[in-house]
Amino acid sequence: MDKIVSLCRRRGFVFPSSEIYGGLGSTYDYGHYGVLMKNHIRSAWLREMVQERDDIVAIDSAIILNPAVWEASGHVAGFSDPLIDCRTCKLRFRADRLEDAHCGKKPSKRPGETSECDLTEPRQFNLMFQTQVGAMEDASSSAYLRPETAQGIFINFKNVLQLARRKPPFGIAQVGKSFRNEITPGNFLFRVREFEQMEMEYFVPPDEAEKWYRYWVEKRYAWYTNLGVRESMLRIREHDENERSHYSSGTSDIEYQYPIGWQELEGIANRGDFDLTQHTKASGTKLEFVGQEGERYTPYVIEPAVSIERIFVAMLCDAYDEEVVGERERTVLHLHPQVAPVKAAVLPLVPRDEGMSTRARTLFEELRRRHTVEHDDSGQIGRRYRRQDEIGTPWAFTIDDRTLEDETVTVRDRDSLSQERLPISGVAAWLDDALQREWRSPKK
Amino acid sequence: MDKIVSLCRRRGFVFPSSEIYGGLGSTYDYGHYGVLMKNHIRSAWLREMVQERDDIVAIDSAIILNPAVWEASGHVAGFSDPLIDCRTCKLRFRADRLEDAHCGKKPSKRPGETSECDLTEPRQFNLMFQTQVGAMEDASSSAYLRPETAQGIFINFKNVLQLARRKPPFGIAQVGKSFRNEITPGNFLFRVREFEQMEMEYFVPPDEAEKWYRYWVEKRYAWYTNLGVRESMLRIREHDENERSHYSSGTSDIEYQYPIGWQELEGIANRGDFDLTQHTKASGTKLEFVGQEGERYTPYVIEPAVSIERIFVAMLCDAYDEEVVGERERTVLHLHPQVAPVKAAVLPLVPRDEGMSTRARTLFEELRRRHTVEHDDSGQIGRRYRRQDEIGTPWAFTIDDRTLEDETVTVRDRDSLSQERLPISGVAAWLDDALQREWRSPKK
Repeated sequence: MDKIVSLCRRRGFVFPSSEIYGGLGSTYDYGHYGVLMKNHIRSAWLREMVQERDDIVAIDSAIILNPAVWEASGHVAGFSDPLIDCRTCKLRFRADRLEDAHCGKKPSKRPGETSECDLTEPRQFNLMFQTQVGAMEDASSSAYLRPETAQGIFINFKNVLQLARRKPPFGIAQVGKSFRNEITPGNFLFRVREFEQMEMEYFVPPDEAEKWYRYWVEKRYAWYTNLGVRESMLRIREHDENERSHYSSGTSDIEYQYPIGWQELEGIANRGDFDLTQHTKASGTKLEFVGQEGERYTPYVIEPAVSIERIFVAMLCDAYDEEVVGERERTVLHLHPQVAPVKAAVLPLVPRDEGMSTRARTLFEELRRRHTVEHDDSGQIGRRYRRQDEIGTPWAFTIDDRTLEDETVTVRDRDSLSQERLPISGVAAWLDDALQREWRSPKK
Repeated sequence: MDKIVSLCRRRGFVFPSSEIYGGLGSTYDYGHYGVLMKNHIRSAWLREMVQERDDIVAIDSAIILNPAVWEASGHVAGFSDPLIDCRTCKLRFRADRLEDAHCGKKPSKRPGETSECDLTEPRQFNLMFQTQVGAMEDASSSAYLRPETAQGIFINFKNVLQLARRKPPFGIAQVGKSFRNEITPGNFLFRVREFEQMEMEYFVPPDEAEKWYRYWVEKRYAWYTNLGVRESMLRIREHDENERSHYSSGTSDIEYQYPIGWQELEGIANRGDFDLTQHTKASGTKLEFVGQEGERYTPYVIEPAVSIERIFVAMLCDAYDEEVVGERERTVLHLHPQVAPVKAAVLPLVPRDEGMSTRARTLFEELRRRHTVEHDDSGQIGRRYRRQDEIGTPWAFTIDDRTLEDETVTVRDRDSLSQERLPISGVAAWLDDALQREWRSPKK
């Protein structure tokens, strides 16, 4: 993980946030390549989950909702972690993760074991960030930053049912920031206090819930392998009954083998009719489906939920490699072309040569109308290739002496390092095609 | 404005948020078409400001930054509105907007004038939302939701300078949510408490600041007219000295003539070296440019800043029309194809005809791999056209009897209502081209 963090810092994918002010624990800012890569991940998700489907629509609900939403959903009462204080060092820990805690004086041990730590009994700490809305500072103005996007979907169920003329099975998808006041954030982007969720709630007739649950577990797994994540690094782990939320009748995690071990990448849950029933009770608005033949039921919900941050880290880990090429070492990101921040680089071999420089510039202008591409004319060509390898650019188009003779360019492949020649006039179409091709990681 | 709000509600662009719980004053959720349109606006901005430029990179900073950032920027001390209480009705108003206020008992008047209202002296109310980060509830854990994205850019100035190998003039762009605890939100999406900003900070040598300020005012104005906003509805208004922030040596608003009057759509400010100087003082990190020949200066900053919400409303207002077509009325959104939520509809004239239905489905599948398109086979063809007109879909492809004979389809133009025939095999390429063409509003 250290190597990933260091590459992210060095090449401007991700910085510790507020660095000039000493940072703010486990908060990060994304640099240029990080923004581009996140945008590509988000687009790939929206294309698969909304654009290419008949049965799913998008919404974008507010971050600060009416607080009654979080009462009904159970978050006010139950969205908490057990918190323990150390009276010796004055630090706080998650009671269920004491083995990972680092006490100021001594590594903490479990209560009861011999230790210099003097630990309190655990108490519940709510993970929702609270704030005040409006100019009145009283209880009635308290509100929360949403800890998940899902509830913003449930409360709009009826709007979508009516206005988008839908009937189950159908889904509502949302991408947006969520906030959790984690007691022990950490492991780079893996557990952060603000993160970007991509959730889809799929509403189905109750007797089809099990079928759709299985469908979405498979479908979401295939999304990762189609985006080049190696199957050897992925597994599906079904929660046993004790581990599941009380309302869930089935939950599976798609796990990735991060450097810190197998961890949840995405969760798929069969939430039953819990959410719609809770909001029906609390709001007095019936959230149910009434068919044209008078059939009437509260749909069950299947939810695939993931954060862009966990995909971002999994894809970087999966792509990172250090290779010896001839006599030189290179650091390379074998990213799927769809998520690579930059799709191609245009490189004039001898930048001061006017013929090469003009052609490179013209090609660059043509390509960047359609894709994120870079033009680089500084330094030795080998160094320029390595700069692109390090940020995972799949192809480089080099304009050289031969270009001036026959109007062809070299295309260099990041993974195979093969070079072939193309007519300069065909590069744009070639790149469009190449971005549609299947891709597999060359890593073992 | 009422007609726009009603269309937005009816066709699922925008709903009042948390509606089943009685809403939450001036907060809105976006439905499917609203999300699509916002996404297109964001993409158009990013394409113009980042993708097609050599000199601007993107970042994405955290919403909750180290609070020292807001001390240094002046927001903790000065980002406030004057607040006045009415002792009679117990409501609160903005002292500088009393004429717009609606008191519970009686329309308020200015203090001093005869009125039943009993108004307090104005006091300053800070507009930043406050929250607590971490498990300690003391002053040290107080933090703010960012009221603007700009400061997240300034504190990353040095990172970008070093890692992206930049020298002035260069810019850093950011898109993301900002939060302001407005005392009097309102006018639909025009003044809301959470909104999505698109800001770009352009760092220049001090002696070039005036030139670049003029450049960005023009450039941003042209962005709107290129996206089809009518020039008659736009104007540039330069702030006079009293109106400007103390650190600004020039500010211009691009105003749009909203139904509520001429109002700021986008602001372009010459912020001088105020921000970088403040953060240099407060953090001890020198935020300056040092050239290879040893030249050294604190760049000036030109800032074009806008929110997606104001563009969204301006474009809807500019596009909305009620027309009489033949003997029927239609409601139509004359949106620029680049921002229209749906780019094209595919309509089988007789859905139960298998030949038409199969061809429509095949064409639809082909088109939606590249664009947001809809397939609609329910109801009379006239009604289907009007549904698409109402959401601003520029083109409809109709599969009819003739398609079965000669494999051509009708393309209907939303604005001119002209119909022409195309070979079905050429539709995808035709649509790609059409989306690149210049477009002008047919409205007077």
